[in-house]
Amino acid sequence: MIEPGSTVKCAKVAFLGPAGTFSQAAVDKHFGANADKLSMASIDDVFLAVEKMQACYGVVPVENSTEGAVNYTQDCLMDTSLSIVAEVVIAIKHNFLLQNAAALSGIKRVVSHRQSLAQCRAWLKLNWPGILLQEVSSNAEAARLAAEDIHTAAIASEIAATNYGLFIHARNIQDRRDNSTRFLVLARNTIIPAGKAKTSILVYTENKPGALFRVLEPFEKYQVSLTKIETRPARDDMWAYVFFIDFEGSINEPAVKNVFLQLEDRAVKIRNLGSYPMASGQ
Amino acid sequence: MIEPGSTVKCAKVAFLGPAGTFSQAAVDKHFGANADKLSMASIDDVFLAVEKMQACYGVVPVENSTEGAVNYTQDCLMDTSLSIVAEVVIAIKHNFLLQNAAALSGIKRVVSHRQSLAQCRAWLKLNWPGILLQEVSSNAEAARLAAEDIHTAAIASEIAATNYGLFIHARNIQDRRDNSTRFLVLARNTIIPAGKAKTSILVYTENKPGALFRVLEPFEKYQVSLTKIETRPARDDMWAYVFFIDFEGSINEPAVKNVFLQLEDRAVKIRNLGSYPMASGQ
Repeated sequence: MIEPGSTVKCAKVAFLGPAGTFSQAAVDKHFGANADKLSMASIDDVFLAVEKMQACYGVVPVENSTEGAVNYTQDCLMDTSLSIVAEVVIAIKHNFLLQNAAALSGIKRVVSHRQSLAQCRAWLKLNWPGILLQEVSSNAEAARLAAEDIHTAAIASEIAATNYGLFIHARNIQDRRDNSTRFLVLARNTIIPAGKAKTSILVYTENKPGALFRVLEPFEKYQVSLTKIETRPARDDMWAYVFFIDFEGSINEPAVKNVFLQLEDRAVKIRNLGSYPMASGQ
Repeated sequence: MIEPGSTVKCAKVAFLGPAGTFSQAAVDKHFGANADKLSMASIDDVFLAVEKMQACYGVVPVENSTEGAVNYTQDCLMDTSLSIVAEVVIAIKHNFLLQNAAALSGIKRVVSHRQSLAQCRAWLKLNWPGILLQEVSSNAEAARLAAEDIHTAAIASEIAATNYGLFIHARNIQDRRDNSTRFLVLARNTIIPAGKAKTSILVYTENKPGALFRVLEPFEKYQVSLTKIETRPARDDMWAYVFFIDFEGSINEPAVKNVFLQLEDRAVKIRNLGSYPMASGQ
């Protein structure tokens, strides 16, 4: 029973599952490995879980993901009332997993998601020329199969190794070293961060030449730095464009307030998606 | 034997396989169903196949794909010497496939890619409440499984139905009707289109406030309409930003030539990815 006046710490976190994906790694990095996690089948479901209060937070990939089409995340952001309260950047590292060190000589096939197999091709060619490669629905599923069969190796994340009790025979086997995915943490309430912040907004404009230029003028005038800009076709036929804009500063700063005032005359609609601390390494 | 002076029509088209994906639908729409197709395991492989002359054209998803992370396409465009020669827009339509009409009463499970299952959830809930849903590595694989087992239904494209000789029991079962994916056609040579054209460029700038604004000024001055703009982190540490910009007009038009002249002073590097006819419906 919850005492009146007591603080209930809500911590259930919905994410794009299954367990062992990089989305789970993002949850663990931000909320800790003991976070109460709720695995969802799709990006839409993560939004729904938070909107319907089945979870307090949702974690979704928004850039460079191999797990889900991140344009889906943008489409969901257009429709939701949720706010962005944090961002998490995860380096995408693939590992070669088997049941134990002794199993190495008996490996007969390597399983993983098709994109992961493609991303580790140079390493596989060098170390396992001619081995049977089999595509499965996710890297987490690959780890599950390796945990079931001593002759199967999986390419998957470190977290998948932990989840399925697998031995990491080789780390960082992906051909490109600089691969990372950016995730957003969503919640029903806005939080204004105290330190160095970033803000994400959606700007809807009419389909006129120069529309984007007019949207950017206030940022130039008040010297607010853009960190990202992206156009998406609006789903509504009335407006031709939606701009996703990330910039430095929180909604409480005077320069940002001035930008918003000027944007109101230049856009059909503006939606503040939230201010949040800048992820480290940016 | 090829006669000296005869025209050799090169038509091999590399695409992101397996057969039966929406990428194959894009190939068939642009090159015809009889095109000589080469199925590749990853987006990088499609680029490589054209660069190494194993194929004359490559078809890759660039927007809103459920089949591959389209940021990969953008990263590949940064590194390649290939040009964009066309764009193809494909409506993403999911269908409920089985071996034949009589098999309907015996269906015991539905297989598909996890994203497709999620996208058809409302329809599945209404028409097949409680049915066993199983995730597989791709929709094409789902169709293959349905073709093997009379008790299995697949959610996949019309082209997968054709490839595997399956019966289409229900069409357009996805919850969202307005879903489409944009593909690019790549080749080793640039082609300047005769009619209404679009051009894609990459613009590298230094990490200074207002960098994007200065890049957009020439477009505003010469009234060249942007159709899309996207920022990507540059892989090279030296430049902070790469902008992917699509605009109306071909590189041969005077206004576009003026924009390019002015951009040269404002950007660290500009790369013309190609001019190509605008896809219908845009």
